[in-house]
Amino acid sequence: MVENETQKQTEQERSKPINLSILPMASTVKVYGPPNSAAVSRVLACLLEKDVQFQLIPINLVRGEQKKPDYLKLQPFGQVPVFQDESITLFESRAICRYICDKYTNQGNKRLFGTNPLEKASIDQWLEVEGQNFNPPTSVLVFQLAFVPRMKIQQDENLIKQNEEKLGKVLDVYENRLGESRYLAGDEFTLADLSHLPMSRYLVNACGRGELFTSRKNVGRWWDEISTRETWKKVNEMQNSPPRQNA
Amino acid sequence: MVENETQKQTEQERSKPINLSILPMASTVKVYGPPNSAAVSRVLACLLEKDVQFQLIPINLVRGEQKKPDYLKLQPFGQVPVFQDESITLFESRAICRYICDKYTNQGNKRLFGTNPLEKASIDQWLEVEGQNFNPPTSVLVFQLAFVPRMKIQQDENLIKQNEEKLGKVLDVYENRLGESRYLAGDEFTLADLSHLPMSRYLVNACGRGELFTSRKNVGRWWDEISTRETWKKVNEMQNSPPRQNA
Repeated sequence: MVENETQKQTEQERSKPINLSILPMASTVKVYGPPNSAAVSRVLACLLEKDVQFQLIPINLVRGEQKKPDYLKLQPFGQVPVFQDESITLFESRAICRYICDKYTNQGNKRLFGTNPLEKASIDQWLEVEGQNFNPPTSVLVFQLAFVPRMKIQQDENLIKQNEEKLGKVLDVYENRLGESRYLAGDEFTLADLSHLPMSRYLVNACGRGELFTSRKNVGRWWDEISTRETWKKVNEMQNSPPRQNA
Repeated sequence: MVENETQKQTEQERSKPINLSILPMASTVKVYGPPNSAAVSRVLACLLEKDVQFQLIPINLVRGEQKKPDYLKLQPFGQVPVFQDESITLFESRAICRYICDKYTNQGNKRLFGTNPLEKASIDQWLEVEGQNFNPPTSVLVFQLAFVPRMKIQQDENLIKQNEEKLGKVLDVYENRLGESRYLAGDEFTLADLSHLPMSRYLVNACGRGELFTSRKNVGRWWDEISTRETWKKVNEMQNSPPRQNA
């Protein structure tokens, strides 16, 4: 009961509305990048789950700020996000999430990266599945369906079809898996599930491909559960807020 | 000096010729898959670095053994490798490598996954760079240049050009990085470097694209160093050995 009470309090903590402008500017944790970038929002969701305060430093991708010399010193590939915490500067969103979970083990959602080596291995496995199997076809679909139309170039219908099939096969495996366990790595929400949120949101909201999830009973149930978490709602609020003056 | 002596002995241990047939069949660690698969060889290189004995269980991809029901129970995507150790069954080569390094921290190459959280974070970052930035264009090139000609279908010249350019940009970043440190994550050979070996070998040996490395001074030096490690030479020997009867 004590543990449940603590969990409940922590859940309430995480449910508080976020107001970036009142976050202390001296927060040691800094995230560079726009919150509507998939990779940036992955890191933000992780920080919110772990109750880590942070300062968001806008990078305007349209103006090419990510390719400027000062930024390239932090992220040599010219991509977002960059993460800073005390003496460390990191890039690659999934590596950043792992670091956040390791450093802030004892705060926020303590089960996000498992509580023993076997749980951690399972989370790591499904996190790699997201990066290697789920993300490639989803990225192609999001680019073709959400961005290409705005760029006044022709959509590649063959590519869309191929990648819908690829993603469908991945989701068929998820459907079986999510019939055995509530979440991908077991019965707890973990980094493996969290990592799917950013690109899935684009697929459902910006590409009209929600049916890929809802046509599969267990995947649909899973998507409902993970996409309505308070922490993810907060990330969505940050994405919908007007950018700061220097963005 | 004592530490150097120990390191030397460990290096000598790792240099011993490997003979799979004399490995104890009761070894708790099992790897399912052909050693010439890139993902399988990533895991084998890691096991050899960590001085972990293992049993290699051949899976014949040409005969489609990876799609058979019994195998799909271990690896639902029908891919290789699968890794088993005592009570755990894992897939996804990079997740397997992380698990091996965590479980066998105190044996073999103790620096392969770092010795403190900052080193580990840097290794994790460059391991993600390999998975997200280096691997995608390299996989396309290896497929187009090494496999398509055998499949009697037309190579896609545009795709080859696009991905050579993409990979070139990634290697330009590596060139700068490897001018600052001997290896990607710092001055020690780590999992981040190791993870590049399998696909780079294909690119250099089967695609004739070694110039992508050798035309860049630091990348060329790095490739020379990592590809001539005793452990990687052993993986190559395993790849060149005739398959077992049931392969």
